[in-house]
Amino acid sequence: MTQPDARLEITPDEYRQRRERLCLLLQAQGLDAVCVFAPVRVAYLSGFFFSATERPIALIVTASGEVAALLPRLEVSHYELQGPGGTLLEVYAEYPGGGSGRHPMRHLQDLLTRLGLQDRRVAADVDGYEHRWGYRGPALSEVLGRPVPSALALIDDLRAVKSSAEIALMREACRWGDHAHRLMQDGLHVGAQELLVSHAASLQATEDLLGTLGGRYVPKSREGMPANAMFIRGANTAHPHGLHQAGPVQRGDVLVTGAYGIIGGYESELERTMIVGDPGPDVARYFGAMLTAQQVAFGALRPGRTCAEVEADVRRFIRDELGMDGLVRHHTGHAFGLEGHEHPFLDLDDHSVIVPGMVFSVEPGLYVPDVAGFRHSDTVVVTATGNERLSLYPRDLASLTVPVPG
Amino acid sequence: MTQPDARLEITPDEYRQRRERLCLLLQAQGLDAVCVFAPVRVAYLSGFFFSATERPIALIVTASGEVAALLPRLEVSHYELQGPGGTLLEVYAEYPGGGSGRHPMRHLQDLLTRLGLQDRRVAADVDGYEHRWGYRGPALSEVLGRPVPSALALIDDLRAVKSSAEIALMREACRWGDHAHRLMQDGLHVGAQELLVSHAASLQATEDLLGTLGGRYVPKSREGMPANAMFIRGANTAHPHGLHQAGPVQRGDVLVTGAYGIIGGYESELERTMIVGDPGPDVARYFGAMLTAQQVAFGALRPGRTCAEVEADVRRFIRDELGMDGLVRHHTGHAFGLEGHEHPFLDLDDHSVIVPGMVFSVEPGLYVPDVAGFRHSDTVVVTATGNERLSLYPRDLASLTVPVPG
Repeated sequence: MTQPDARLEITPDEYRQRRERLCLLLQAQGLDAVCVFAPVRVAYLSGFFFSATERPIALIVTASGEVAALLPRLEVSHYELQGPGGTLLEVYAEYPGGGSGRHPMRHLQDLLTRLGLQDRRVAADVDGYEHRWGYRGPALSEVLGRPVPSALALIDDLRAVKSSAEIALMREACRWGDHAHRLMQDGLHVGAQELLVSHAASLQATEDLLGTLGGRYVPKSREGMPANAMFIRGANTAHPHGLHQAGPVQRGDVLVTGAYGIIGGYESELERTMIVGDPGPDVARYFGAMLTAQQVAFGALRPGRTCAEVEADVRRFIRDELGMDGLVRHHTGHAFGLEGHEHPFLDLDDHSVIVPGMVFSVEPGLYVPDVAGFRHSDTVVVTATGNERLSLYPRDLASLTVPVPG
Repeated sequence: MTQPDARLEITPDEYRQRRERLCLLLQAQGLDAVCVFAPVRVAYLSGFFFSATERPIALIVTASGEVAALLPRLEVSHYELQGPGGTLLEVYAEYPGGGSGRHPMRHLQDLLTRLGLQDRRVAADVDGYEHRWGYRGPALSEVLGRPVPSALALIDDLRAVKSSAEIALMREACRWGDHAHRLMQDGLHVGAQELLVSHAASLQATEDLLGTLGGRYVPKSREGMPANAMFIRGANTAHPHGLHQAGPVQRGDVLVTGAYGIIGGYESELERTMIVGDPGPDVARYFGAMLTAQQVAFGALRPGRTCAEVEADVRRFIRDELGMDGLVRHHTGHAFGLEGHEHPFLDLDDHSVIVPGMVFSVEPGLYVPDVAGFRHSDTVVVTATGNERLSLYPRDLASLTVPVPG
């Protein structure tokens, strides 16, 4: 973001650099091309964001730098607007055939042939288009009649290290996650409906975002808002991923919240444990324990260490200092960016080395069965010497207590 | 929905019936079990709705009727609350290992062995857990060391024919899609922000829904609202799946809207073409053409015909009567339910036979490059003799024109 009035999105130049980096990796591995099926990876490498449906879309990047795409007719004008120029297009009428009698994967085969790749080493992020949204079709390996090497790690390892432009977008997203959360907290009171308080805050935060950013904000989806807040409440928080419930906030509730912005396609993460009214001594104790565990995690996360080493520090603290190992239900965090969860993970079995530019959620949680869960989550970017927290919302109990009169 | 105060969700009994039907199909195909990875299919067969992450979840249904599940520790309490009783559970600590040194797919292998399935015919909906949210792992066929037959069509063909309970949920969802759309239309005026008008309507519709349905409404997700409306505007509508834009509504805009409810996990679909101010003669002509094409589709959709035959009627009308075949960008519709798009499709190459209980979107569209798109979409259920439209929003031009004073 060099210009203060620049649009908050990745530039065509940076998309080109990503593909160039990928080309070098393909060459190093003796691969002639990669075929990318997952919508998020297509967007990462091309800037083409779209609404994924039953219609397969694939981006092909060759080791020599060519770009080609398989597109359904309905996305051609859209791709031409957003995608990189110079793309060789193979367009099919419709899925499963639109009267052509030919499945889209046959068109992909044609495209690979046009690129001279029919007998070359073609890798893929995943072996064919995802079987969602009613799609049925053969794997790429079936179409080609040979095994397809995986390029999943190749691409996702690139994604794991964010550029300064990506970090700037995530920093901006954090601002709006913080703002949505503040508005939600201000709207919280006994009797408030979980779904209404949160979405009213999301709407107001979105209005504020649009007013502040104006034309700099460029939506990358057809749905949802760019600033969001939500929470779950009561015993439901004892499930780390409890679903929404329709019901009013009650005195004594523990809330576990979630708020995020989405800027240029990049998400932020912010979660807080809140208490409605005076916390009793037990709740205050679990809250404090969770808070110190998160502090340990902040201190442990720095370049040169592995994800597993960070997690080991946190788990050791929870076990030896807190005596609460039995309340742990998940690892301490995950990378993220275009997706809400991405590789790598702050997990005892993830031995990825942490490098500057990685962005993690830091969220050790403690879950007391049938009572409540306790979890803060923050967006943290790894710096040259340690890390920086991008979500700036208060973390302490006093700031996160909803006053209850009387 | 036999009881007026019954919760708006599928009953445990119906989930059991689905599994029993699947068992019969497995037996007929000589399969001993199916391993289900896609979250939506797990929900369809078990009632277990969850927030999908890097942590694989798999449901196993055996031909003899046993149910087993692979779960990460953080979802166990949640599964016990929602899922079917009597499930044999294999629980892993965390992905990729949580300190166990064992990938979740190894636990799946253990579970298959515990079920005596290590050497039996085990099919799957897809060959392993989806590579999203940072997940990396082997295909089921790699774990088992043998090909895994696909049970995708087996399950999704079941899903395609909705029960009376599913149709009741979709009918209710349509009510709230209609309502959200009405509120959005009432809020439309020149200068209105696309994102704000739509989300304000969604919020108000959600509040009305919660007030009306009370405890009968049971959320099945952690995000979003149960009643939603959105639109895109201007030349952006010429892209069938244009993304949101941040900008004000202008006189002369063509809008293409979308609104839906989600009840018990089931979606509805409603889309309308709207005009801001007086439509010129060209816009009125395209609108009228689209409207008659949709009417042809309504008339064509009935049991005993194939999807391709319905689409052929519509395409013939657009080509021969309207002379607008060049403006078509997609097929006439798709089935849907738990997912926004599902198999089968009203497409010239989809020869599925239409049967009562199938629910389709009916949405032939016409797209004038650089000018605008014209598309209504309605939720339609196939009846014994024809079809019934479940979305009841007005379709005519006068009802869909936003008045502009002066």
